[in-house]
Amino acid sequence: MSETVIYRDDVSVELVKSSASDADVIWAARVSTAGEQSLDEIGEDPARSAGLINYLARERHGSPFEHTSMTFFVSAPIFVFREFMRHRIASYNEESGRYRELKPVFYIPSKERKLIQVGKTGAYTFEDGTPEQFEITVKAMKDAYVIAYESYVKMLEAGVAREVARVVLPVATYSSMYVTMNARALMNFLSLRTSREGSHFPSYPQREIEMVAEKMEAEFAKLMPLTYGAFEKSGRIAP
Amino acid sequence: MSETVIYRDDVSVELVKSSASDADVIWAARVSTAGEQSLDEIGEDPARSAGLINYLARERHGSPFEHTSMTFFVSAPIFVFREFMRHRIASYNEESGRYRELKPVFYIPSKERKLIQVGKTGAYTFEDGTPEQFEITVKAMKDAYVIAYESYVKMLEAGVAREVARVVLPVATYSSMYVTMNARALMNFLSLRTSREGSHFPSYPQREIEMVAEKMEAEFAKLMPLTYGAFEKSGRIAP
Ligand SMILES: O=c1ccn([C@H]2C[C@H](O)[C@@H](COP(=O)(O)O)O2)c(=O)[nH]1
Ligand SMILES: O=c1ccn([C@H]2C[C@H](O)[C@@H](COP(=O)(O)O)O2)c(=O)[nH]1
Repeated sequence: MSETVIYRDDVSVELVKSSASDADVIWAARVSTAGEQSLDEIGEDPARSAGLINYLARERHGSPFEHTSMTFFVSAPIFVFREFMRHRIASYNEESGRYRELKPVFYIPSKERKLIQVGKTGAYTFEDGTPEQFEITVKAMKDAYVIAYESYVKMLEAGVAREVARVVLPVATYSSMYVTMNARALMNFLSLRTSREGSHFPSYPQREIEMVAEKMEAEFAKLMPLTYGAFEKSGRIAP
Repeated sequence: MSETVIYRDDVSVELVKSSASDADVIWAARVSTAGEQSLDEIGEDPARSAGLINYLARERHGSPFEHTSMTFFVSAPIFVFREFMRHRIASYNEESGRYRELKPVFYIPSKERKLIQVGKTGAYTFEDGTPEQFEITVKAMKDAYVIAYESYVKMLEAGVAREVARVVLPVATYSSMYVTMNARALMNFLSLRTSREGSHFPSYPQREIEMVAEKMEAEFAKLMPLTYGAFEKSGRIAP
């Protein structure tokens, strides 16, 4: 049952499927104004499409952005998923510690991850640690992960149920999930999970969830460039 | 920074506040039929109140049950909260590993918790383990928890940020939260998180979340006895 322990410092995001385009937003907006000629013509004209989408975002007419769907396969540590799943306008299916044996894959920060917190709670920033602080972190984490995984395997080998044995595993354990969101919910997610230090509406996400958010953002920007542009122009506040 | 490690085998649930009564359901149902005399009179007559509430539950008219609110303070391990927070029609505020130092309180099953899983995935049942299996479990868990907590403290003492250091802590770590739900969402939660083995719609929750659900159910039954009775009569399926 025992497998080699693997350490990762990255997260991965794959766009599995989507039904999401700027045209979907225009068509949904049109429903509100059916017959109003100005809007009926916009779909054909790229400049006017951008204008309408910017208008909807600026005026916070959010609902036309909802008739879209993006499904991502995300691989990240459990502590990231705990924050992620607080976003309620989304559908989730996650790997289960009840129904399968979990693999020993654990998070250890890369050298680039700033380890030292400065400033007050809520609005703090991070600084690099010293090489010694990094070494202490890596060693402390590996020590804990190895014993946790050994304990897990010992219980499984003794015949204990997976759902009981897994309680020893750390929140650094990698998990995976499908998550499906519409563009409005995704913009709300991005507005909270990417940092906007110094902006009028600052946001201080934990770096590891921001790493996931950045990869989702890149896919979103490709699928819906006008909507993405409007989101940027609105100070990255979701409509 | 280091504190004595504590082991718990229980969960706790406290009703913090509520605005939830059977009369709320009747009043909400009345809105749909304002002027219809039969319903207008029901509120005054206990037998007819029970009849109406049973009718609403049986016909799955769920919305009148939503104009109610119950706030619970729950203390349980993180692996329980991960399952809990998949329920989206609720409001949550949980203790944060980013914003505070976490206490070394960890879950170890009591002797009553059946440790051995039998039968197929999804519909399996549990049996008692042998005394040896219980001993192996307790020892494996304590070994993992002690090292995890030592690693956590070592990183904090080295000046590493709380949000980084906490990644070594197991999903057995106790957390606490406020959760607020309406009666309809609570019935849905109960229908999924208490077991209905052998029923037409079976449900196989992990025992530890069921322990939380049972305590919430007891509070709900006291606040809304007619609604609770109707829920029972409907086979514990939420309207
Ligand atoms: O009975 C279950 C099994 C899984 N999950 C959800 C919670 C997590 O998001 C994920 C994995 O949970 P575990 O099976 O590891 O508890 O699936 C539940 O809500 N209930
Ligand atoms: O930046 C944060 C901080 C907390 N939480 C939520 C997720 C968990 O439900 C709980 C504790 O999370 P941590 O602070 O331990 O990540 O609060 C977030 O979603 N984002």
